[in-house]
Amino acid sequence: MGEAILSELLTEVLIPVAAVVGIGFALLQWLIVSKVKLTPERPAHGANKNGYNDYLIEEEEGLNDHNVVIKCAEIQNAISEGATSFLFTEYQYVGVFMVAFAVLIFVFLGSVEGFSTKSHPCTYSKTKTCKPALANAIFSTVSFLLGAITSLVSGFLGMKIATYANARTTLEARKGVGKAFITAFRSGAVMGFLLAANGLLVLYIAINLLKIYYGDDWEGLFESITGYGLGGSSMALFGRVGGGIYTKAADVGADLVGKVERNIPEDDPRNPAVIADNVGDNVGDIAGMGSDLFGSYAESSCAALVVASISSFGINHDFTAMCFPLLVSSFGIIICLITTLFATDFFEIKAVKEIEPALKKQLIISTALMTIAIAIVSWVALPSKFTIYNFGEQKEVKNWELFFCVAVGLWAGLIIGFVTEYYTSNAYSPVQDVADSCRTGAATNVIFGLALGYKSVIIPIFAIAVSIYVSFSLAAMYGIAVAALGMLSTIATGLAIDAYGPISDNAGGIAEMAGMSHRIRERTDALDAAGNTTAAIGKGFAIGSAALVSLALFGAFVSRAGISTVNVLSPKVFIGLIVGAMLPYWFSAMTMKSVGSAALKMVEEVRRQFNTIPGLMEGTAKPDYATCVKISTDASIKEMIPPGALVMLTPLIAGTFFGVETLSGVLAGALVSGVQIAISASNTGGAWDNAKKYIEAGASEHARTLGPKGSEPHKAAVIGDTIGDPLKDTSGPSLNILIKLMAVESLVFAPFFAAHGGLLFKIFK
Amino acid sequence: MGEAILSELLTEVLIPVAAVVGIGFALLQWLIVSKVKLTPERPAHGANKNGYNDYLIEEEEGLNDHNVVIKCAEIQNAISEGATSFLFTEYQYVGVFMVAFAVLIFVFLGSVEGFSTKSHPCTYSKTKTCKPALANAIFSTVSFLLGAITSLVSGFLGMKIATYANARTTLEARKGVGKAFITAFRSGAVMGFLLAANGLLVLYIAINLLKIYYGDDWEGLFESITGYGLGGSSMALFGRVGGGIYTKAADVGADLVGKVERNIPEDDPRNPAVIADNVGDNVGDIAGMGSDLFGSYAESSCAALVVASISSFGINHDFTAMCFPLLVSSFGIIICLITTLFATDFFEIKAVKEIEPALKKQLIISTALMTIAIAIVSWVALPSKFTIYNFGEQKEVKNWELFFCVAVGLWAGLIIGFVTEYYTSNAYSPVQDVADSCRTGAATNVIFGLALGYKSVIIPIFAIAVSIYVSFSLAAMYGIAVAALGMLSTIATGLAIDAYGPISDNAGGIAEMAGMSHRIRERTDALDAAGNTTAAIGKGFAIGSAALVSLALFGAFVSRAGISTVNVLSPKVFIGLIVGAMLPYWFSAMTMKSVGSAALKMVEEVRRQFNTIPGLMEGTAKPDYATCVKISTDASIKEMIPPGALVMLTPLIAGTFFGVETLSGVLAGALVSGVQIAISASNTGGAWDNAKKYIEAGASEHARTLGPKGSEPHKAAVIGDTIGDPLKDTSGPSLNILIKLMAVESLVFAPFFAAHGGLLFKIFK
Repeated sequence: MGEAILSELLTEVLIPVAAVVGIGFALLQWLIVSKVKLTPERPAHGANKNGYNDYLIEEEEGLNDHNVVIKCAEIQNAISEGATSFLFTEYQYVGVFMVAFAVLIFVFLGSVEGFSTKSHPCTYSKTKTCKPALANAIFSTVSFLLGAITSLVSGFLGMKIATYANARTTLEARKGVGKAFITAFRSGAVMGFLLAANGLLVLYIAINLLKIYYGDDWEGLFESITGYGLGGSSMALFGRVGGGIYTKAADVGADLVGKVERNIPEDDPRNPAVIADNVGDNVGDIAGMGSDLFGSYAESSCAALVVASISSFGINHDFTAMCFPLLVSSFGIIICLITTLFATDFFEIKAVKEIEPALKKQLIISTALMTIAIAIVSWVALPSKFTIYNFGEQKEVKNWELFFCVAVGLWAGLIIGFVTEYYTSNAYSPVQDVADSCRTGAATNVIFGLALGYKSVIIPIFAIAVSIYVSFSLAAMYGIAVAALGMLSTIATGLAIDAYGPISDNAGGIAEMAGMSHRIRERTDALDAAGNTTAAIGKGFAIGSAALVSLALFGAFVSRAGISTVNVLSPKVFIGLIVGAMLPYWFSAMTMKSVGSAALKMVEEVRRQFNTIPGLMEGTAKPDYATCVKISTDASIKEMIPPGALVMLTPLIAGTFFGVETLSGVLAGALVSGVQIAISASNTGGAWDNAKKYIEAGASEHARTLGPKGSEPHKAAVIGDTIGDPLKDTSGPSLNILIKLMAVESLVFAPFFAAHGGLLFKIFK
Repeated sequence: MGEAILSELLTEVLIPVAAVVGIGFALLQWLIVSKVKLTPERPAHGANKNGYNDYLIEEEEGLNDHNVVIKCAEIQNAISEGATSFLFTEYQYVGVFMVAFAVLIFVFLGSVEGFSTKSHPCTYSKTKTCKPALANAIFSTVSFLLGAITSLVSGFLGMKIATYANARTTLEARKGVGKAFITAFRSGAVMGFLLAANGLLVLYIAINLLKIYYGDDWEGLFESITGYGLGGSSMALFGRVGGGIYTKAADVGADLVGKVERNIPEDDPRNPAVIADNVGDNVGDIAGMGSDLFGSYAESSCAALVVASISSFGINHDFTAMCFPLLVSSFGIIICLITTLFATDFFEIKAVKEIEPALKKQLIISTALMTIAIAIVSWVALPSKFTIYNFGEQKEVKNWELFFCVAVGLWAGLIIGFVTEYYTSNAYSPVQDVADSCRTGAATNVIFGLALGYKSVIIPIFAIAVSIYVSFSLAAMYGIAVAALGMLSTIATGLAIDAYGPISDNAGGIAEMAGMSHRIRERTDALDAAGNTTAAIGKGFAIGSAALVSLALFGAFVSRAGISTVNVLSPKVFIGLIVGAMLPYWFSAMTMKSVGSAALKMVEEVRRQFNTIPGLMEGTAKPDYATCVKISTDASIKEMIPPGALVMLTPLIAGTFFGVETLSGVLAGALVSGVQIAISASNTGGAWDNAKKYIEAGASEHARTLGPKGSEPHKAAVIGDTIGDPLKDTSGPSLNILIKLMAVESLVFAPFFAAHGGLLFKIFK
């Protein structure tokens, strides 16, 4: 079988070093962003190193620089406070749940062998002795809590840097679009690198600590580690759903009264829901997205590790090869670091039209470099030949085959990203067609938008199918897991691009609220439009990786539950399949209705304020922002419970009462159905948003025939945009979590289901 | 194993007698309807047997009865001509396709054994000799053409009676709501009974004719018969898609200009698209629906027969037991006949509020009586014990177990029907909530409507899952097939209820166009509102049965292709599963965009006529109806080709290039994903339609706060209704065909795929 070229010692050094470098780089970026002062000092002359005109727009226009900065700082403060307070409230509720669920994990897993403390022969290497199920229960619980806390920290830090950067981006926009871009992008990078490095480091430390107890029992060790993925994803569920409801209740509510009824512009400070709306961008798109991608990353690593532990790596105790997934992620951090320099230091943005290409270049560069890195890791970290556990048998795999598995995932991600861009950017015909259909009103806009979303599913699904086929054929479920890791290997860059969007969005909001010049608003709008597309690309990645991850977890679950076939022709499996395929609909119905109801409450409050606060429309009185923030907070906390319960309870109920076969069907059904709805919902929403922006911007002859703002086609486009909000920011992205979380939960509880599951069928037989 | 109580001779008599009775009953109903004269004669006094006031509304109001009748006859004539001409155009195109596809079937199936004319040992009973594959090719082709022609005739006859009855219903509405109801319902019954009896009779004759050639080779006989199902469903595909595009292009186009821009009421004779709109109801909802349900019926019978032929029935040549599916259908016709009498003769409708309960009673009565009938058939037609082929082994089944299989399908249908009613009738809170959300505009209406559709999937899926589990566990794939038959056993009543809707819709249109009193319009509107709900119930049945049918066909395909497991954990199957789950989205994208584009063309034409024909708005000039009819015809013929090709080619491509395993995955994926979209699309659309009607009718305090017509909430409701049109009448119901047709096509081509399929994998291996 041969040995890996990379020694165990070097592996033990390389991984933490890469993680620490990543964290250091993130802090460096933060330091650079912090140089933009939010206190009213004039920057010294000569700091003008990028060659921008140093006159600020206010100075040119004779405004008072001093007041603007103070106002920006105030608004930033309000947003940051709102976001922090929401997250703390959310964490309290989620904390209670996490503790309860931790107890559940312990009890369920402990009961597998009746809380016995005796060691037993291993499941896969019969000759060895493995630690008792009780140890598994304890350490799974600990891993679960660790994953949840890491996810929480990732989301929270992301939100912090985002609310730190938004006003700074606004202020930099006075100097030019390039300066604003770089501030927003660097802040995104802080989040991306912190999250990637943090996730890697915690996982690495956890493995090494567990090794002290488990020793040679790698089967037990890596089974316990799966709790880390479950913790990460559980947290992500509430982050996505709660954050998604928060942001869209505020957004929809603000738009329905502000834009439609009162005819005031977006982010107008007179709108009482405007702070809640801006808070929402940070808790939904930043903290939620961060938790989601961290969850995917943690889960794909865990899925790869658990399969590897029962393959030749684990059986032969080949630590370097075992750490292959972590090494891929380590190299990923370094590659992303180099890629970031292309945007921040090697080139500079001077005009609006350079923004989108610059962001796309980030994706291409990171993918190209990462391909080389994967080749190197596959060569040095893997033996030239090894075996992979494949549902009951060992399959021989060569190291270059594993390279293809990772690479196919990576490139599939890029294809999904570009297809998403094609369908959601208003530079191409699909969105322009949707905009054009606004001529005949909102109904045709909605019909065309839904059709666009459905159509946008085709190529991504083929890309996912090809990567599944290639990686599955080459290296069974391990192949799928590393393909998912491949897609996520450039996560730092992906998140940087992704977080850049909401930061720019907020920056625009602050410019509007601070009453800054419309030229600044134009610059931030340009940043935001590019951000819309990159947000869609980010969602594409999130969904694509979720599909691969959940398939890998599904495979790991099946292995751990001791099933070797999941036969669709068995009634137990088929009913699982069809019910599983229904779950995303049930879940979406809940989340969409939640957004709708919360938005209605928000509408009532905003209307009430406009009607009862004298001078509000005239701008002489201040609205009561806090009540709107509270409405969003309360609604999202209350409304996230039922969909959360659906996702968390389904595997437990299916596994306990119907057994592992039906549960397998449920997982497969939810996966193949959920991925379609997730992609189509997020692209439909993105397309509607950009169709509206296309009409508003009026950049082409065609666009001008549809506009301007306030025209009938524009009104139709606004309706489409509002419908798209919950689709693209709440129900769509939450589905990623649904499919991943059910799979990882099944994996963690697999020993219990295998031992005690299927009660209902047992009674009737 | 024992013998059936019913002798072979009696079976041979019973089936055709039931069919002939059905046809006779249909003709009788037609005769009764034809008594309503469309020539301006006053009906004789004393014909007033139901005790209604014999004064016609026109007479009371002093209008000229003579002219109204002539006008109705004219309009009816225009609609009938439009529908006939569209169907003939459609049939020309479809005819070409059918011939081409027939050739394909012959070539593919003939090539399985290289067009050899030699007999060979049977696949399942190795000791016997079976007819050559060439015979199979020839008779499959013949059955295919027979199925297509029967489907065509069913759809055409349905359209004819519907366009015959619409004006008669209008005229009867002058006498009272009860008389109008009974006319519309009798006409629906004509279609229901003709279709059910016709389908049964043709199938019965075909089997008996093929028996002359095949003799003891029942395997070959019933394999060839599957072509009948394929023919029926291929025709249904084009009927549903073409008809669906036609009707919704006209409807959406007419509404967008008429209601929204010109503010003229629905069905106003000044609207140039009004005739096309009324034609559409007949070609889409009547002919399309008829072909669809005929297809389901033919396919479930074929699926049951082909599985039975390799079970003990077939092996022992037990003809009575073999004919069990046909006997169930025969009894179904008789039960439906009795049920119809409850609506037409035993009770009478006197008030509007009695209509919906009367229709619901039809469902309940037919289901209850049918349960008894099934018990009798199971007892007399089946041996007390027998074996059923179950993927490579024979499973022992008792006759009472088969009773449960049929009954569970029947009752699941009723549950689906009632759940559909709950979610789409404006008597319950879901639709009222959607109506209420119109307060805040079209966007919230759409969000709530989509959520409603998603939610409405839950219970039907559980109902389907339970029936699958029960019937699958008791009698394998044969159980599923007879469960589907159970759901369809009351098809005559189902279709009668279903066809009643579009007939009433048309009747209302004719009343409006003929300038009749608003009191007549109110009566037809009341009939139509009940019709909307029953249409949704009918769609629920169609989808539910499609799910069961395609699973049964899938099982038959798998058996015939010689696979015994379809393992999700195999990459070949999994990629099929995920791509299959994507197909309904691709298909819906095509059909929705088709409706959108065709509607845009219609809008342009209608606008052009309003702008260029002087006196059109004032009612002094007549619009050019023919051009609008032509636009809908051309658009639907052109646009039905790509989605048709997608459905027809997918199994061929998947089977030929990727082989039977991937194809199995595709079928399972399309089934579990398509059924969800189909249910949610049709219920969302139905709910929007009835939310609008709820606001318009203003029957409750709540409804009045939202109205009246023309209020902002009403405008929002109209937008929702327009979006729902293609969902509920084009893309949603077409998905039934997608899942069924792919399955039956795979079944027919199974021998070819098994022999020559999977080219791509063969090349790479």
